[in-house]
Amino acid sequence: MDKTITLYDTTLRDGSQREGISFSVSDKLNITKRLDAFGIDYIEGGWPGSNPKDIEYFRTIRQLELKHAKITAFSSTRRAGICVQDDLNIRSLLAAETPVVTIFGKSWDFHVTEALGTTLEENLNMIYDTVAYAKDRGREVIYDAEHFFDGYRANPDYALATILAAERAGADIIVLCDTNGGIMPFDLQQIIMHVRSLTKAKLGIHAHDDAGMAVANSIMAAKAGVQQIQGTINGYGERCGNANLCTIIPNLQLKLNLPVIQAEQLEELTQLARYVAELANLAPQEQQPYVGSSAFAHKAGVHVDAVMKHAHTYEHIQPELVGNNRRFLLSELSGKSNLLLKAQENNFDLSKENPQTKALLDKLKELEFQGYQFEGAEASFELLLWKAFDVHRQLFETLAVRVITEKRGENGNLVSEATVKIRVGEQEFLTAGEGNGPVNALDEALRKAQITVYPEISHIRLVDYKVRVLDGKEGTGSKVRVLIESRDDRRQKSWGTVGVSHNVIEASWQALVDSLEYGLLTAGKARDTLRGSVNKFRMEG
Amino acid sequence: MDKTITLYDTTLRDGSQREGISFSVSDKLNITKRLDAFGIDYIEGGWPGSNPKDIEYFRTIRQLELKHAKITAFSSTRRAGICVQDDLNIRSLLAAETPVVTIFGKSWDFHVTEALGTTLEENLNMIYDTVAYAKDRGREVIYDAEHFFDGYRANPDYALATILAAERAGADIIVLCDTNGGIMPFDLQQIIMHVRSLTKAKLGIHAHDDAGMAVANSIMAAKAGVQQIQGTINGYGERCGNANLCTIIPNLQLKLNLPVIQAEQLEELTQLARYVAELANLAPQEQQPYVGSSAFAHKAGVHVDAVMKHAHTYEHIQPELVGNNRRFLLSELSGKSNLLLKAQENNFDLSKENPQTKALLDKLKELEFQGYQFEGAEASFELLLWKAFDVHRQLFETLAVRVITEKRGENGNLVSEATVKIRVGEQEFLTAGEGNGPVNALDEALRKAQITVYPEISHIRLVDYKVRVLDGKEGTGSKVRVLIESRDDRRQKSWGTVGVSHNVIEASWQALVDSLEYGLLTAGKARDTLRGSVNKFRMEG
Repeated sequence: MDKTITLYDTTLRDGSQREGISFSVSDKLNITKRLDAFGIDYIEGGWPGSNPKDIEYFRTIRQLELKHAKITAFSSTRRAGICVQDDLNIRSLLAAETPVVTIFGKSWDFHVTEALGTTLEENLNMIYDTVAYAKDRGREVIYDAEHFFDGYRANPDYALATILAAERAGADIIVLCDTNGGIMPFDLQQIIMHVRSLTKAKLGIHAHDDAGMAVANSIMAAKAGVQQIQGTINGYGERCGNANLCTIIPNLQLKLNLPVIQAEQLEELTQLARYVAELANLAPQEQQPYVGSSAFAHKAGVHVDAVMKHAHTYEHIQPELVGNNRRFLLSELSGKSNLLLKAQENNFDLSKENPQTKALLDKLKELEFQGYQFEGAEASFELLLWKAFDVHRQLFETLAVRVITEKRGENGNLVSEATVKIRVGEQEFLTAGEGNGPVNALDEALRKAQITVYPEISHIRLVDYKVRVLDGKEGTGSKVRVLIESRDDRRQKSWGTVGVSHNVIEASWQALVDSLEYGLLTAGKARDTLRGSVNKFRMEG
Repeated sequence: MDKTITLYDTTLRDGSQREGISFSVSDKLNITKRLDAFGIDYIEGGWPGSNPKDIEYFRTIRQLELKHAKITAFSSTRRAGICVQDDLNIRSLLAAETPVVTIFGKSWDFHVTEALGTTLEENLNMIYDTVAYAKDRGREVIYDAEHFFDGYRANPDYALATILAAERAGADIIVLCDTNGGIMPFDLQQIIMHVRSLTKAKLGIHAHDDAGMAVANSIMAAKAGVQQIQGTINGYGERCGNANLCTIIPNLQLKLNLPVIQAEQLEELTQLARYVAELANLAPQEQQPYVGSSAFAHKAGVHVDAVMKHAHTYEHIQPELVGNNRRFLLSELSGKSNLLLKAQENNFDLSKENPQTKALLDKLKELEFQGYQFEGAEASFELLLWKAFDVHRQLFETLAVRVITEKRGENGNLVSEATVKIRVGEQEFLTAGEGNGPVNALDEALRKAQITVYPEISHIRLVDYKVRVLDGKEGTGSKVRVLIESRDDRRQKSWGTVGVSHNVIEASWQALVDSLEYGLLTAGKARDTLRGSVNKFRMEG
């Protein structure tokens, strides 16, 4: 692939400035791996020295083997009036031992004198010294010219002098930042053209969305010849966010014919966007271009008609190119087609006339009205399918469940203890479990009760547990939805289940029971107890 | 005001195609009044004949006296092969008795032959006949050239022929629509320039956001000389939405110096955006440019420092111009300034040299590393402040807490029962509470224990309860963060608190205790028990 533009992701640093985001170290490592696999060229991991999390991140990331991306650490230029080697920030920056460092400096005269409180001259030295020092220590250096466009408009000569200082010091690329996000695309383009006439340095763009122009400005900059685009997944970032790479990448690739990743990688875009939203613990933005769940959803009658004949009549690209898919919101009809599709995937031959199909659809509608959601809980959906078609086999009956959560002594932690009574065939089991939370304790107890009959349960483990409050109106009495993801490492298989209730423990219990039931029904001894008809459509073992 | 561009709002028609929106007739009437007061020039009320709601809307709206806006009704051109006066859609359109009608027709040859199934010639007649017929009946006619840009790229001569037919028939304005939302700003601009060289007709733009370019395309069209911009409030619309008027209007007014409404009206923008979100029953988009609650929220330490000195260092406009306001957020990335600011708000005079300031900052960093987050939990933060400065007064000691969640019988629901033992002064209280979840039960029991000593607790109620799982790696053993929002209606005051633990009940308990403690410490009898120093900075009662 002949690339003229590199992609620079700052989700982990600038993105985490978004209100509500707080990535753990392990979130940051996981996102790094995903971005690397996706084909991002530079991943800005954080600002070493700004907090202990970022230091731990850089220590750990060195041991990871990445396929493609380079990790970069971020810092400001040295402080005014000191030697660069004495600056603690710069020491932390180099201690991060990344192949690339990103150094930001001031381009706007007003910022230099007012925010930094130093002279214009000293700021030029700060830029030069810091870039040169990092270059001397063998780093690839990206220079971020903060507030470049505002600075240019206030004092073009000075703004240009700052980037020329970075260029002289050996910066590998100079990134023009619209830090306040207020510039219009036509102004931006003119300024970039002027800069290009004055320097041979490689240029990049870093845009913010305060005027709704971050994507447009990035694309206009690409047209004006910049060679790096900085942005974040889902456009996360301070205030209105950074330039959204999930929009910019397909625009570059599909609209401007400027390939930046492989076509197969582009097909992972929707999944990547949702994965990062998940780790950021933010609901995915349904209306987001390309990757939103509504991006190819058709509601208007005329549109649906036309799209069914020829998809491109109301779709600017094929949704599959970015890993998304088409939906029709004409509920009744589309409900059936979606269901049919899902059943087909499971080798059920559902005909539209079948009364069981209608019953299942009604059940599904009712559950969705209650707050159930089967995206990410396909195992719960499959169990519903099996029940509707009478091929399901209940593995156990719950006779009693109790969890006690108790604080012992004033400084003691709350400890949870669960007892579970179930019947398997003719046998009854009464077991107890302990855990650092009520659901954890329940999980313990339920496993103990089943393990003698279904030893394969020991291979199944819970890998993710999520709680969403569905309606804040009633305070602690609100409804919650619990999603559990389980995994059988032996079979390399993961599955999700769901539960909904006003009681978080009830919701968790539902998801837990579905999770173990599904895991057992698709493997080992229990699978053999399913009727023959199930064996037709469940294949792995 | 010398206006060169008129604003056309289609929130009530195109906007309502957004997934999840369903306006009632009274919603539509209320929004119309708001848009009128705000200074919108044209308000597209709906598609008469498409549904009974729209017919009722047009019947009622005739009796409303609007200050400024003109109401327009929307329809397609006549169907193929019939006389315009026999077309039921066109009859309904005129029966709506609006001063303006908007007629959309096909510009893309492929759509004409494939979606409409008629000839290119007949489509030109359909456009001409419908526009001319409406003009004859005294209407101002806006012609929407559907898919104009896609059509132009497929067959420029034919696309141009369609708009020339509308012009000949007397259309007052011809609106170029990017119906599929896929065009890039530079292509759009070139096409508009070409159209302008061929016709003297007034042009408008109608953009969709499928490539994240709706706002940019509208602004580029304004630069290219169009005289009408169509869009919706909050960018609501099918798929990824329409061009967002809440971004376009301030861009025109504040960035391009093209006034479209009065400055006082612009100050109503944020309220308007929230009002429409409210009626659409959608959460306002926090990151939305200009009007989002995060649009002027500062999180990064260096930003906060600078904004405190000079707001425009990190703000592209003054938030007051669009009726929004500035906020400072707390986070692990922030330096001392955020903290100082927050302390100032609370009338603490924290000097940077004070060792208590450093101790508090370290405590805060440590808590945030553990997963605490004080955005949205300012009350927990204030309690920390009070504790650090030794002005806090503990209202009660927790001696024991126990919650039992139990399933009674096979089909019974899980029921939660809590017992709480606390000490208030010399007195011990042991109480029990029941609820539809463990936290609900704890809340009950804790209130019962306190109410005899602090009767004002009865005014405090929990209004929101959120659970976030911080790290999915350990399944049900993951850490969770609980955020609780409480309210005292008597004092019209709300506050948020936070708790973090591996045990959801422990985390909830922390947030609950903070919530009640804060509520009591800032009001009524308990407030008087705080030391004198606290009274200096807590004022309400």
